Amino acid sequence: MAMMVGAAPRRLTSRSNPFQLARLVGSALIRSISTGFREEWDTLGPVQVPADKLWGAQTQRSLQNFNIGGERERMPEQIIRAFGVLKKCAAKVNMEYGLDPTIGKAIMQAAQEVADGKLDDHFPLVIWQTGSGTQSNMNANEVIANRAAEILGHKRGEKFVHPNDHVNRSQSSNDTFPTVMHIAAVGEINSRFIPSLKQLHSALHAKTIEFKDIIKIGRTHTQDATPLTLGQEFSGYTTQVKYGIDRIVGTLPRMYQLAQGGTAVGTGLNTKKGFDVKIAAAVAEETNLPFVTAENKFEALAAHDAFVETSGAVNTIAASLMKIGNDIRLLGSGPRCGLGELILPENEPGSSIMPGKVNPTQCEALTMVCAQVMGNDVAITIGGSNGHFELNVYKPLIASALLRSLRLLGDASSSFEKNCVRGIKANHQRISKLLHESLMLVTSLNPKIGYDKAAAVAKKAHKEGTTLKEAALSLGVLTEEEFNELVVPEKMIGPSD
Amino acid sequence: MAMMVGAAPRRLTSRSNPFQLARLVGSALIRSISTGFREEWDTLGPVQVPADKLWGAQTQRSLQNFNIGGERERMPEQIIRAFGVLKKCAAKVNMEYGLDPTIGKAIMQAAQEVADGKLDDHFPLVIWQTGSGTQSNMNANEVIANRAAEILGHKRGEKFVHPNDHVNRSQSSNDTFPTVMHIAAVGEINSRFIPSLKQLHSALHAKTIEFKDIIKIGRTHTQDATPLTLGQEFSGYTTQVKYGIDRIVGTLPRMYQLAQGGTAVGTGLNTKKGFDVKIAAAVAEETNLPFVTAENKFEALAAHDAFVETSGAVNTIAASLMKIGNDIRLLGSGPRCGLGELILPENEPGSSIMPGKVNPTQCEALTMVCAQVMGNDVAITIGGSNGHFELNVYKPLIASALLRSLRLLGDASSSFEKNCVRGIKANHQRISKLLHESLMLVTSLNPKIGYDKAAAVAKKAHKEGTTLKEAALSLGVLTEEEFNELVVPEKMIGPSD
Amino acid sequence: MAMMVGAAPRRLTSRSNPFQLARLVGSALIRSISTGFREEWDTLGPVQVPADKLWGAQTQRSLQNFNIGGERERMPEQIIRAFGVLKKCAAKVNMEYGLDPTIGKAIMQAAQEVADGKLDDHFPLVIWQTGSGTQSNMNANEVIANRAAEILGHKRGEKFVHPNDHVNRSQSSNDTFPTVMHIAAVGEINSRFIPSLKQLHSALHAKTIEFKDIIKIGRTHTQDATPLTLGQEFSGYTTQVKYGIDRIVGTLPRMYQLAQGGTAVGTGLNTKKGFDVKIAAAVAEETNLPFVTAENKFEALAAHDAFVETSGAVNTIAASLMKIGNDIRLLGSGPRCGLGELILPENEPGSSIMPGKVNPTQCEALTMVCAQVMGNDVAITIGGSNGHFELNVYKPLIASALLRSLRLLGDASSSFEKNCVRGIKANHQRISKLLHESLMLVTSLNPKIGYDKAAAVAKKAHKEGTTLKEAALSLGVLTEEEFNELVVPEKMIGPSD
Amino acid sequence: MAMMVGAAPRRLTSRSNPFQLARLVGSALIRSISTGFREEWDTLGPVQVPADKLWGAQTQRSLQNFNIGGERERMPEQIIRAFGVLKKCAAKVNMEYGLDPTIGKAIMQAAQEVADGKLDDHFPLVIWQTGSGTQSNMNANEVIANRAAEILGHKRGEKFVHPNDHVNRSQSSNDTFPTVMHIAAVGEINSRFIPSLKQLHSALHAKTIEFKDIIKIGRTHTQDATPLTLGQEFSGYTTQVKYGIDRIVGTLPRMYQLAQGGTAVGTGLNTKKGFDVKIAAAVAEETNLPFVTAENKFEALAAHDAFVETSGAVNTIAASLMKIGNDIRLLGSGPRCGLGELILPENEPGSSIMPGKVNPTQCEALTMVCAQVMGNDVAITIGGSNGHFELNVYKPLIASALLRSLRLLGDASSSFEKNCVRGIKANHQRISKLLHESLMLVTSLNPKIGYDKAAAVAKKAHKEGTTLKEAALSLGVLTEEEFNELVVPEKMIGPSD
Repeated sequence: MAMMVGAAPRRLTSRSNPFQLARLVGSALIRSISTGFREEWDTLGPVQVPADKLWGAQTQRSLQNFNIGGERERMPEQIIRAFGVLKKCAAKVNMEYGLDPTIGKAIMQAAQEVADGKLDDHFPLVIWQTGSGTQSNMNANEVIANRAAEILGHKRGEKFVHPNDHVNRSQSSNDTFPTVMHIAAVGEINSRFIPSLKQLHSALHAKTIEFKDIIKIGRTHTQDATPLTLGQEFSGYTTQVKYGIDRIVGTLPRMYQLAQGGTAVGTGLNTKKGFDVKIAAAVAEETNLPFVTAENKFEALAAHDAFVETSGAVNTIAASLMKIGNDIRLLGSGPRCGLGELILPENEPGSSIMPGKVNPTQCEALTMVCAQVMGNDVAITIGGSNGHFELNVYKPLIASALLRSLRLLGDASSSFEKNCVRGIKANHQRISKLLHESLMLVTSLNPKIGYDKAAAVAKKAHKEGTTLKEAALSLGVLTEEEFNELVVPEKMIGPSD
Repeated sequence: MAMMVGAAPRRLTSRSNPFQLARLVGSALIRSISTGFREEWDTLGPVQVPADKLWGAQTQRSLQNFNIGGERERMPEQIIRAFGVLKKCAAKVNMEYGLDPTIGKAIMQAAQEVADGKLDDHFPLVIWQTGSGTQSNMNANEVIANRAAEILGHKRGEKFVHPNDHVNRSQSSNDTFPTVMHIAAVGEINSRFIPSLKQLHSALHAKTIEFKDIIKIGRTHTQDATPLTLGQEFSGYTTQVKYGIDRIVGTLPRMYQLAQGGTAVGTGLNTKKGFDVKIAAAVAEETNLPFVTAENKFEALAAHDAFVETSGAVNTIAASLMKIGNDIRLLGSGPRCGLGELILPENEPGSSIMPGKVNPTQCEALTMVCAQVMGNDVAITIGGSNGHFELNVYKPLIASALLRSLRLLGDASSSFEKNCVRGIKANHQRISKLLHESLMLVTSLNPKIGYDKAAAVAKKAHKEGTTLKEAALSLGVLTEEEFNELVVPEKMIGPSD
Repeated sequence: MAMMVGAAPRRLTSRSNPFQLARLVGSALIRSISTGFREEWDTLGPVQVPADKLWGAQTQRSLQNFNIGGERERMPEQIIRAFGVLKKCAAKVNMEYGLDPTIGKAIMQAAQEVADGKLDDHFPLVIWQTGSGTQSNMNANEVIANRAAEILGHKRGEKFVHPNDHVNRSQSSNDTFPTVMHIAAVGEINSRFIPSLKQLHSALHAKTIEFKDIIKIGRTHTQDATPLTLGQEFSGYTTQVKYGIDRIVGTLPRMYQLAQGGTAVGTGLNTKKGFDVKIAAAVAEETNLPFVTAENKFEALAAHDAFVETSGAVNTIAASLMKIGNDIRLLGSGPRCGLGELILPENEPGSSIMPGKVNPTQCEALTMVCAQVMGNDVAITIGGSNGHFELNVYKPLIASALLRSLRLLGDASSSFEKNCVRGIKANHQRISKLLHESLMLVTSLNPKIGYDKAAAVAKKAHKEGTTLKEAALSLGVLTEEEFNELVVPEKMIGPSD
Repeated sequence: MAMMVGAAPRRLTSRSNPFQLARLVGSALIRSISTGFREEWDTLGPVQVPADKLWGAQTQRSLQNFNIGGERERMPEQIIRAFGVLKKCAAKVNMEYGLDPTIGKAIMQAAQEVADGKLDDHFPLVIWQTGSGTQSNMNANEVIANRAAEILGHKRGEKFVHPNDHVNRSQSSNDTFPTVMHIAAVGEINSRFIPSLKQLHSALHAKTIEFKDIIKIGRTHTQDATPLTLGQEFSGYTTQVKYGIDRIVGTLPRMYQLAQGGTAVGTGLNTKKGFDVKIAAAVAEETNLPFVTAENKFEALAAHDAFVETSGAVNTIAASLMKIGNDIRLLGSGPRCGLGELILPENEPGSSIMPGKVNPTQCEALTMVCAQVMGNDVAITIGGSNGHFELNVYKPLIASALLRSLRLLGDASSSFEKNCVRGIKANHQRISKLLHESLMLVTSLNPKIGYDKAAAVAKKAHKEGTTLKEAALSLGVLTEEEFNELVVPEKMIGPSD
């Protein structure tokens, strides 16, 4: 029996209130105003497909069977593009193993269009489908097959180029989907994530230099502590980001391993010897990235530990950036009732009711992203730990969550750098005032008068609201000359000779 | 200085490969092909805005300052619609407090258009903005002000209707955003989430009845155990979903509390007494839902414990559904090498390489959704715990994560019910075969011959590959008559009289 | 073949460094200096057990097979005590169903000793054992059987009182362990967790009253905002804790449901009709808590959704307390370079190097506990979602994690109340100074001069470092009289008439 | 005013029920039956300390102020031992910088006793204390000072050896605690965690070899798939563990960096130049591990990204082991109604009610541990992301959670290897039976007859309950000879030539 798209939109209700309306609009996965359909078929029988779309029967079935989340939940486009890359490479290698060159070249051309994003509208499926990503693999196979057939002068749906026998030749969803997961994630890491972190690292490093001579009060337990320079404070942030880059780079060796060639369960059934190595080489050439074939295909299909590991690195970076974002907003708090040591750029009016208010909005966007990244890490861990036997079937979840984490944290780092860090200024006057009022300068007296007497000095000054010097002299623990000699913030920002 | 949109798209590179292309397309937040701009301004000065858009200066600034994640990351439309509802109600109540009725009515009309989703294209901002949601509140204020002005025959940008003084009157982002968070989430819960759970509950309950007489082997520790009916097994799932509904309903009393009236910090500054109660009543009337004013506005702005709590309930439901989804796919495993007790509907070809394969894809989509929901729960918890002083500034994160969890789990439950549970059939032959081969029927001998002897019978049968009866008779622990009397699966599915 | 305890301690190494030593000490699960052993046996054969211990063969096997984590990882004592309660009740009800009263009464006496904690040393097993808790159930059965036998004048190991046939009569680990999980958790909730939250709520409420007339600057986005009273600020915290109590109380209806009577798979095999109701009643009477029999025993064995739900409530409370703890330490930051609005009790010297430093240590202990609770929530969710078929086998994990969360958060709340909240003082001078320097008082000008002009006033004052009044007069937007009339903090802490 | 320990135990109630009793016992932090007290003092004044204990005033204050969680919650002993190592090294280096050699040597001797675990009973403090670990640092300082004084013939409490001026010389809790965190974690990783993983890796590798010729059915989506060898299946597990070892090793470079020398805020105030390098070298020598001084001390105090990163690696390993544990229990499910391909060792009776039942208890303990490790990762991430300014004050949480994860996962891996993996046997008969009944052998027909026809064969066989060959011949798609040539499991376990 043929199925029609949207013939009877489920959930239509007679009375509409804002929520019902929202639901309807929200769930309208296809806004297609196609005036016609054509018949496509698969091993379960024929299906009606919008005439203006390149996809085939299996894509159409998925569209109808997985009405989950609406358009926002579409498979990430990085995955779609990576399918273009992979299918092109597969056709190329398959020609070496006997695929008809006419068909092979047409597939390569069609696949390139997918890689270039020209056929995005023909990939309507959502993340929440079969856990192997089979339906998105078939979506790619069907679109490329129909497009290649058109290139060769044939009609859609006739299977002159066959989605399984030609486009998917020597492949299985079980090895293509993990392969595109790795291509997409590595692409995102190299093209956006690491560059954004490097941009942020440079900006923080520049501030470290810029602020190297500004001595300020330190704070531990949120309480006043001994002084340091503002540059030293920023050097901590700089180091965190630097190590973050090291961390993500450290995961790449396992991310560069491609599952392709494992086919259905990892054995490589229906491939020829050497296919796995050749296809990894082809992908490496196509992307200019050092992909290699996975040393164990069983692991590569059944588990996604490399994604869990990479998400762990991204999670660590999120923890670093949350710390940095929090510090900067607190150091910039005020303008009159906060710490006020930093002046943050004013990018927009801060309040719809409080005129003149300026808020640390970049810190807020960044830390919100960090929270989502931490949550995604848990989602990825759960998905990664729940494989069964020869196949992990949480692939689309794992892929989409990591890609979202990478994209958001990369973009947020870049935005934070551009719209905040770059423009941070030190409030010299305020910093100086706080420094000299602090009681914790007393710490430099320890080596001279001992911890207990030094404590007495600080307590006395605190209790009586005086300066440390007044308290010290009053207690008679040292002379003014000695005090002046010892309590010098400039001498307190490093070890002594 | 005026700012232009997209005048110099950052990151443009000369050579394009698939990843760079993906990046460009991905980050092209505005596909606008506007041919012109108009000037809008705010307290920081003028800004160029696409002429065909209703938004104003602050929206435009946010668009430029928060280039994070691309179009997929737009503020959820449920939030936008809820702003329509709220701003309409606010205008209505403000008229009671002296707002010019001409302006008030135009605002109400414009706000209704927002509530109806007619102005969705004018809400371009992403989730990752200021943590108070101020920019989305201003987006709503600006769009409604410009639209209301047009309704009254004035031009966009002239502020005949003022976004702050009129549309946002007696309000602050700090109380409007939490208010729309609650309206949106409660709407999603009532219009989609609970109905989907009820639909699933009904289907499971129907299976409980349908399968009530099918006796099968039980499994504990994944090992054979004493028998139960398939209906009893499904009654456990049914109860889980039933309690899930109770759990989400139990969070509503705190979700129905609206922050509106707290304004900037919870005090209600710049409102009149009674405004908070009136606006909650207006929202309740508009939505037909029992909203009330929050009993403590300080809590309502500074914390989102109600969202953390609700997410906890959704997380619990995800745990339930993951258990159910896992059981059903394992019970349906096979067709020849698995447990094979259930026959699941065949909705699509299961494999791109293995012909004839049918997979439990609905279970996979559902359990993937559950993993994401569990991750979102962590994100929401982190966001919820990180408020500072009078305002939690993780609002858009918290709102979007809970809305996504609700939408995905609601849709997935519905899809799972429709495309899987409804069509599950029992494999009677297989169930019967396994039941009668099992050794754990030996348990019913305990009261008669004691645990130790019963264990010896089971061990002997296991070791020698015989039936229990053969082992029992061989050991001489009871007669055949006694054995036949005692070991009757039908008598083992409940307490004895 | 008999097994000896510790005959050949594995891991002993010839060369000892601190870490190896640590390992050895750490893994020395049994410090027993028993001079002798006796033989106990189970269905797998005989085992050597320390002569001075009451446990039997199965406990001994577990001890040897699960050398995981050392003594710290022992099954929580609340579980052990709850086993005492349950086994006593089971014996009592079993006597109604025919258990020999002599044996029954001895079991009750022995079980009471377990409930009283007198036999704690005889429960050596760790959490990380069989996932059903079977081994701890057998530990209880064996100890009670041997102790009851002794009471009746028989020797240990002779099984005059049989651990399975008598002590475990009509029971299975599969229903006893979830039953003791519920008894233990509900006991902890009622006896320590809720009382501690109530204690904290009272203290916060008292501060709300004490501080009701202290007007202070509000802070949103960590930036200066409009004023409120310190009492209002504390009322937010008070409300959070109040709702927290509501949240945990709201989970109790499902926590009061006992699985007992479900036996092996939920059917109640080997029990008599009514046993489940009677035993729940007996437990209710013994504990003075409203326990009832679970309405669906299949759900009660196969899932622990009630624990996931309760952990979600505890997680929400942790989010609340983290917010409160953070606020209080930041408001108490200083003494000279922080916000300094609160003066926290000085409980101990704060620094080993900075004399005179006092730190918000109670906030730190509390927020660390909150982080662990949030982590445990994830552990419990993962455990709860991973049941298979008729039995969830993450029971000891789920039980121990929730019990730890409850204990830690209860104790930390109590400690925080006693050693911090109770002694918090307002720093009146500092609060007043900050309030009057703030620029956000400008907000009260909105209704009079509009948002845009009010913004101009604030910006001018900020830029020029003047007061708001000076800026307002200089801009000529209102007279001094008008300014004085409008900008009155006392009028800004609530809606106007 | 002097404080007495336990003079008025709070919470004592007149009527005792099991829960109240449990509470009392549970909260009895000190079981001390000390008959006397001595006076110790610190900068806040005198305190009464049990006469038989070496600790001083600050330890005693912490004991009283942080009554959280009871004895189980004591600071992990690895931390205590590491303090012994560190304080010994500090004394050694301090002597180079002028510390009196008599005192220095006594400190070294006393510190060695701490490192050797001889003074464990003198470290009563719990994890939930000040977030810097100051109190545990002072506990170490006090115990070592008193012990060193005794060694030199002086009395406890007289401060002949001063806890701050001598034992803590050139140090701050802020650098000592992160230093001992790293020493303790690295010790645990090297002495127990990695060796346990290697042990597991070897056992899995041995099974890979042992099972290399056993051809079995593969399973994807829990459904029958194409065949592979049991050895190939185990090679996936082996690879997962191998990569896990790589992952944890990859985190060590940052774990070997010691904060020591940063003192209060990272500047190194009150140390001499070179102190940081010397002390790292001393620790490296003492432990035979390649510790170095941290390249940036500000990062080393203010953040614990290295711990978040390491926890991420441990979390990844937990995900791997959960997958392996799940697979093994499912492959071993049965004995008659499950998959039954593996025979797992019988270590103990499995059920208290079902005689003869044997359960995969090692898998259960392992997977429960994995769930806790995943939860701890969230706790560590939250703690790690919440540092403020110059100091992260979630140190004891972070340290204890990672140490627990390492210990549990190390021990569980070892137990799993010893008590399960090592003894796994293949059920040849069962494996062979399932293989030959499977329909997925049809996949090898694809290259010959195409996907669509192959699907028709499989569907016909499934529907009619026949063999593939019967279906293929009946459909006439190939001859018997061709079928026999193509469908050969032995040829399906790898690529073809």
